[in-house]
Amino acid sequence: MVSLRSKIIVSTLILLFFSSYSYARGRGVTNTASSPFVKLKSLDIDDVKWTRGFWAEKSALCHKVMIPNMRRILKDPNISHAYTNFLIAAGREKGEFKGTWWHDGDFYKWLEAVAYVYAVTKDRELDQLVDEVTEVIGEAQQKDGYISTPIIIKGLERFQKVGHHELYNMGHLMTAACIHYRATGKSSLLDIAKKTGDYLYKTFKPRDRRLAHFGFNPSNIMGAVELYRTTGDTKYLELAKIFVDMRGSVSGGTDQNQARTALRKEAEAVGHAVTANYLYTGAADVYAETGDRALLRALEKIWQNVALQKMCVTGATGALHRGASSARDDVHEAYGREYQLPNATAYNETCANIASAMWNWRMLAITGEARFADTMELVLYNSALSGISIDGKHFFYTNVLRRTKDVPLVSWDLPTRQSYLSCFCCPPNIVRTIAKVHGWAYSISDEAVWVNLYGGSELNCEFVDGTKLKLTQETDYPWDGRIKITVNAPEKKQFAVMLRIPGWAKEATLQVNGQAVRGGLQPGRYFKLNRTWSAGDVIELNLPMPVRLIEANPLVEELRNQVAVKRGPIVYCLESVDLPNGVKVSEVVIPHNIKLKPEFRRNLLGGVTVLEGEAEVLKEGDWSKRLYRELVPREPRKVTIRLIPYYAWSNRGVSEMTVWMPLDR
Amino acid sequence: MVSLRSKIIVSTLILLFFSSYSYARGRGVTNTASSPFVKLKSLDIDDVKWTRGFWAEKSALCHKVMIPNMRRILKDPNISHAYTNFLIAAGREKGEFKGTWWHDGDFYKWLEAVAYVYAVTKDRELDQLVDEVTEVIGEAQQKDGYISTPIIIKGLERFQKVGHHELYNMGHLMTAACIHYRATGKSSLLDIAKKTGDYLYKTFKPRDRRLAHFGFNPSNIMGAVELYRTTGDTKYLELAKIFVDMRGSVSGGTDQNQARTALRKEAEAVGHAVTANYLYTGAADVYAETGDRALLRALEKIWQNVALQKMCVTGATGALHRGASSARDDVHEAYGREYQLPNATAYNETCANIASAMWNWRMLAITGEARFADTMELVLYNSALSGISIDGKHFFYTNVLRRTKDVPLVSWDLPTRQSYLSCFCCPPNIVRTIAKVHGWAYSISDEAVWVNLYGGSELNCEFVDGTKLKLTQETDYPWDGRIKITVNAPEKKQFAVMLRIPGWAKEATLQVNGQAVRGGLQPGRYFKLNRTWSAGDVIELNLPMPVRLIEANPLVEELRNQVAVKRGPIVYCLESVDLPNGVKVSEVVIPHNIKLKPEFRRNLLGGVTVLEGEAEVLKEGDWSKRLYRELVPREPRKVTIRLIPYYAWSNRGVSEMTVWMPLDR
Repeated sequence: MVSLRSKIIVSTLILLFFSSYSYARGRGVTNTASSPFVKLKSLDIDDVKWTRGFWAEKSALCHKVMIPNMRRILKDPNISHAYTNFLIAAGREKGEFKGTWWHDGDFYKWLEAVAYVYAVTKDRELDQLVDEVTEVIGEAQQKDGYISTPIIIKGLERFQKVGHHELYNMGHLMTAACIHYRATGKSSLLDIAKKTGDYLYKTFKPRDRRLAHFGFNPSNIMGAVELYRTTGDTKYLELAKIFVDMRGSVSGGTDQNQARTALRKEAEAVGHAVTANYLYTGAADVYAETGDRALLRALEKIWQNVALQKMCVTGATGALHRGASSARDDVHEAYGREYQLPNATAYNETCANIASAMWNWRMLAITGEARFADTMELVLYNSALSGISIDGKHFFYTNVLRRTKDVPLVSWDLPTRQSYLSCFCCPPNIVRTIAKVHGWAYSISDEAVWVNLYGGSELNCEFVDGTKLKLTQETDYPWDGRIKITVNAPEKKQFAVMLRIPGWAKEATLQVNGQAVRGGLQPGRYFKLNRTWSAGDVIELNLPMPVRLIEANPLVEELRNQVAVKRGPIVYCLESVDLPNGVKVSEVVIPHNIKLKPEFRRNLLGGVTVLEGEAEVLKEGDWSKRLYRELVPREPRKVTIRLIPYYAWSNRGVSEMTVWMPLDR
Repeated sequence: MVSLRSKIIVSTLILLFFSSYSYARGRGVTNTASSPFVKLKSLDIDDVKWTRGFWAEKSALCHKVMIPNMRRILKDPNISHAYTNFLIAAGREKGEFKGTWWHDGDFYKWLEAVAYVYAVTKDRELDQLVDEVTEVIGEAQQKDGYISTPIIIKGLERFQKVGHHELYNMGHLMTAACIHYRATGKSSLLDIAKKTGDYLYKTFKPRDRRLAHFGFNPSNIMGAVELYRTTGDTKYLELAKIFVDMRGSVSGGTDQNQARTALRKEAEAVGHAVTANYLYTGAADVYAETGDRALLRALEKIWQNVALQKMCVTGATGALHRGASSARDDVHEAYGREYQLPNATAYNETCANIASAMWNWRMLAITGEARFADTMELVLYNSALSGISIDGKHFFYTNVLRRTKDVPLVSWDLPTRQSYLSCFCCPPNIVRTIAKVHGWAYSISDEAVWVNLYGGSELNCEFVDGTKLKLTQETDYPWDGRIKITVNAPEKKQFAVMLRIPGWAKEATLQVNGQAVRGGLQPGRYFKLNRTWSAGDVIELNLPMPVRLIEANPLVEELRNQVAVKRGPIVYCLESVDLPNGVKVSEVVIPHNIKLKPEFRRNLLGGVTVLEGEAEVLKEGDWSKRLYRELVPREPRKVTIRLIPYYAWSNRGVSEMTVWMPLDR
């Protein structure tokens, strides 16, 4: 048996090793590390630029609309009090704290988005903006490094309630500061974050039992690892490990924030889904830097539990407003029972979905397995983007899969996206995700470049040996599966281009310089295209996108005998505005042999491919006075339906909508 | 505005009025009262006897098997400690208390069943049995009238925890004692119960705030009203009113036992479903004796909420092991959200279902509306009887609507019915229900006799004016809808026979002495057959029983695009033992035009009508590694299925089963 002491020695040695390793790294490293435990290395923050197409348009909207709109919101005390709280804490203004306990974190997320956008646009106005608020944040910070404006302004004692979200606030500060440093080379915000990191290390290092079950939505784990990656200081990695290890280490923790069971012993996704996914993401970061196999084993088990039992077809997670399986604690905004995936009453918070994408991005980096990239993409196009309107200025909190006027809105359900939410965690989260998603499009490994996401883009990077590489990707993905990649390596060099063949791409074909590459294009795997490349070599990948009806595991009772519609990575839905008058969303039945024709509409919903075809209508009649009735033979009549991408629903007023529709076999 | 004082005066006057009214009543009154606020009066305890057919057979099994089997269980300390606890509390034996806090109540329920069976059989052995245990109960009772053996034996302080179930125990004592008195004329047990009632009156009359949210599963309300009905002493009615009024009267109560919101202000069925339905039943009893309209209004609202949003097709209630809607408390064994009716993970405790039948029986008495009798019948044949095996000796606690080996059993789910349950509340509850259901078959009003339940039986009773009436009913109901009733009034007398036309009986026909009676046979209403009767007049009612496919309100997500099968009052299910090898229950799809042929099988499951027909099989393939997949066109093949009554499933070993099946439109 290995003694505790020898464990500590080994840990210390590992940390020392990484320490020297990490100091060697510069500002270019983004969210995943260049550690020996990571198969796919991240690229520098400005290595990838979207050029044309879906993400290029979202990215431009992010720069031109989302960022300034959110700046206006966050700085206007009559809307959001986030910035004003900093001004008050800094002593520049007088007033009371207003907003949620986690309002600082919302602000930092927006700051992170600004830094990402600056990295690729070099928009000087954004640079100045960060400089200006950094000063204020610095003044608000306490001498010992602590910073969380509600506690400071209210003069409360620190770390009294998990719900105070102090670690969430400081976690997002650390992440934003690292990104800002990498984007600008300026250490102004990073210096503040380091002070905070040092404070947290000092506070949590003694493993005070009373602090064991802090925090909630633990962005602090990711933040601490990022701080380690950026500064090379191993104490921040140790801090991240403490944050992971202390949960569930003393009794009295609950599933609400995954503190009942220590993560290494957990096999199930439980509790508040944002808190859960932030924890899993942070733990993946810790694995990525330490190679702690027990963590990865737990994460793999939990991932399986989510992917096979608890994930919506849109990739959304945390299906319940509230619930518990019988052996678990009652939790809010929660992962439910196995196979419990309600539609109209789904929670599926935007933040939980984004966190799932972040988690999958890290699992991809660790393993190089396409299933994680598939899930990340599924979330991005569907349950993440559904959180923001086409105009970039309105937001959903919950992401239901069905909306009917007969099910009342509760809690954070909204009739349609809103320009401001008093709980403002999701809006800046989706904005920073759009701002950084280009960083997830490609990865690099020793002898390969990995194409994770498809979209018009340009990659300029270096291999580990210093060889420069330029890739140009042209495609109308996700509306069209034809992808053209031009390789511009400056010299003849042998390396592999790893092409992700999505799980849904059954008939993928590939050509290099017009010559077909045969065999091995397995759906749900990366295809290794290994050769000696010359400048101007052209890869043509075709991922045919037939419209597919999707059915769910029969154990999911809420989805039994129903179908969803997917094309490529896009999940579709039926929205009432697209139905003829007098036909209800719930009256549409999908014949098993329906022909749905894709058609791209430039002027609809920012440009989307819609699906049109003939379905059936079965009039419901009056259900107001009964729960059951005799099935009366009803002759279905035909109706032409138009399906739109799920993410684009509710952009044309208040409506009814469904993703899952009854199947006529 | 009416002042509190005048309200008290009015209440007192009302109580005084009933007081004099009640003293006039003798031993014949059973569960519903002969009060001016009750439209249908109950019959004397031995007025009705089952003669032949379904209930006669169950009733005989109750006498010959269920009662003695349960006597053996309850008296054997190596199985149940219920009787031993009384012996210890009485000082006759030494030992520790064992069993649940509510184990006394289980014993009293069985005692009540014994009294009912004695009333119609005059089986002297049963009489002696009660005499014997009554002595012990009397010795166990404390000097001041208190009796709850766990508290007595453990020497604990009284009324410290709601979960101690002291009021549940004493409530069932009061009810059992009243029934025993009516069945035997002996006051031995009643005297004990009166002492308990007096003790409770003294304890709860001062409305101590600390007692406001007692008790749990409040049989004490029904028990107190019954004690009032039997003794005529108004303080017991006042006690029952206190029990109803004190819930939710001080803050801090939770939905778990309906103590968050005062009943009069409630519009929704919430919390633990047994506790809920016991409360509603007790409150209906209080209304029946006081005419308190605010209570009836609340009960009607709650009933609508259950019937239109929260009741299974089997009549079962309390669908959740655990849950809460977002605005409500987290509760166990609970009523869920509107339209939340899971199948495989349903709770649907036998006790909750029985309590629903008791509640509906009282609502029927109060209003004379057939919808309550329909619901009572639905529960009896389906979600109550499902709690007991065909042999009368094995019991279910939860009553799922689907059983699949892929959903793990949790909490009180059982692989198949068990001979003993350590939580023994349901078994004696179903036994006492079978023992007394003849009392629900008929009612009497000033000028009418009401036929509530159909079954071979004989009624001997008196009208209010003293006229004697004898009815003989012959039928093979529920397997056959033909019912023959012979009226044997001793003299020509004009009165109405009120015949319940069940909600499902669309094509009912009626003859009197061979002459068709036309018009007015509305489903879901009582048909008033008013005439001057002669001895030997014959009523022939025919309730055709076509097999019907049932669909659920589209808002019930777990039942979407699926059908259940009913014939008459019987809900059917598909059990794996009736399928060919290699076909799974979940693979069977029901064509909308399926022809299901009823056939009575004398030797199957105690004699049941099965339904046979041709359905479709769609092989599922392997779902173990995925949650979603592309719908692949699969040619359905035909399969002959046999459906059995739901109540009779799981009598042939461990099996898979479903009530709801996917529909092929």
